[in-house]
Amino acid sequence: MQTSAVAQNIYDNAEFFARYSQLPRQTQGLVGAPEWPAIRALLPDMRGRRVVDLGCGFGWFSRWARQHGAASVVAIDLSENMIARAKADTFDVAITYRKADLERLELPESAFDFAYSALAFHYVRDFPRLLETIHRSLVAGAQLVFTIEHPIYMAAMRPNWLCDEDGHKTWPINRYSVEGERRTDWFAQGVLKYHRTLGTTLNTLIATGFEVRHVEEFAPTAEQIAENPELAAEMERPMLLLLSARR
Amino acid sequence: MQTSAVAQNIYDNAEFFARYSQLPRQTQGLVGAPEWPAIRALLPDMRGRRVVDLGCGFGWFSRWARQHGAASVVAIDLSENMIARAKADTFDVAITYRKADLERLELPESAFDFAYSALAFHYVRDFPRLLETIHRSLVAGAQLVFTIEHPIYMAAMRPNWLCDEDGHKTWPINRYSVEGERRTDWFAQGVLKYHRTLGTTLNTLIATGFEVRHVEEFAPTAEQIAENPELAAEMERPMLLLLSARR
Repeated sequence: MQTSAVAQNIYDNAEFFARYSQLPRQTQGLVGAPEWPAIRALLPDMRGRRVVDLGCGFGWFSRWARQHGAASVVAIDLSENMIARAKADTFDVAITYRKADLERLELPESAFDFAYSALAFHYVRDFPRLLETIHRSLVAGAQLVFTIEHPIYMAAMRPNWLCDEDGHKTWPINRYSVEGERRTDWFAQGVLKYHRTLGTTLNTLIATGFEVRHVEEFAPTAEQIAENPELAAEMERPMLLLLSARR
Repeated sequence: MQTSAVAQNIYDNAEFFARYSQLPRQTQGLVGAPEWPAIRALLPDMRGRRVVDLGCGFGWFSRWARQHGAASVVAIDLSENMIARAKADTFDVAITYRKADLERLELPESAFDFAYSALAFHYVRDFPRLLETIHRSLVAGAQLVFTIEHPIYMAAMRPNWLCDEDGHKTWPINRYSVEGERRTDWFAQGVLKYHRTLGTTLNTLIATGFEVRHVEEFAPTAEQIAENPELAAEMERPMLLLLSARR
């Protein structure tokens, strides 16, 4: 375990950032992410809402929220690179970009009507603290929608495809119940993530005072697989977890 | 898929029943099940409650509930063998044993203060119907606690241990997002179970009107592993899912 609660900031590694920036979900935005239609189905009407976007990256969601009627967006990211790029792509004074570490995040109380986060919370070690901060920053009845890497995807020591005894494409699970650091090589060596069981993620939400509203273990639709046959592998094991909760 | 909603009744197969009856959780009762302490932590105070026990088996839980103050127990099982054995072991007129198929279960409305089920619901094809029946039978605020085989344990075509590329004991996952029948050999050939993702199980509870209160992917404690080293494998992947929900 780390002793200081400062997140690893892989996104400001120049080589990582250059390669990450070429992902379809960065070059094409939200429509480049196969899970986007499933996320969108969980979102409330944006009109008039004060939104906080935690781990905003290039700001694709923040701009989408404003285009769909959000009153304002506070968009937060740890990475200078991300914030600089997001600002360069944004011409909207109702979106405020702010550099902050989710491990140490401070937010104003009862300031937001909707909280969103895509693929950021699995980098956070102190998840209970972060959820308490978000909970306090939301008004009663407000929704939190977030995505993380699925613990089935993250758990194993060697998260690479295997074959079972009959040759079926198979994903390995081990150490599922051993929570904590996971280091993988993804555009850079030793990218640090924190594995939590699905039970821990849900129970932490509940203990913080959220009501769990929807749990989506993302799988592509038949239409998505027909368009992009590589996605068929996602039926074998979920890579992403989409959660909706209500304060 | 089956066309008629009648559950397979493997427990009335003589050979299966003879072997099943020798499991520690049958010969020793609740304390023979390593997950019992974790279940017990989820249970409300039994005193004065009208309890329904769905898939009661030998009646261990029903008798425990009465010993801990439950006002009455309606204990339901599909199997003649189970019911006969449960009745033979029970000297308590406040426990009523009833033979019924959970696929076609009918229960009186607002008749129970607590519903319990251990390792039965993964045999049920029509889970939404069953949950609606349970929901109607509970009073407002009543709890449902149940255990099922974990979908991580059930999903794969060949649910047997593998080794990963480094030789670590590894559980296979495939077809996780393909829900439906799973047939395995467990004391008998072709035991029929129904795989549902964890998301589907939780979303069905929520859609039925339950509030999810706790999600436990059972893992043994360090003390349990010290007493019974075979349990260490349960840290690699969860075999059981324990759920608590409130009407």
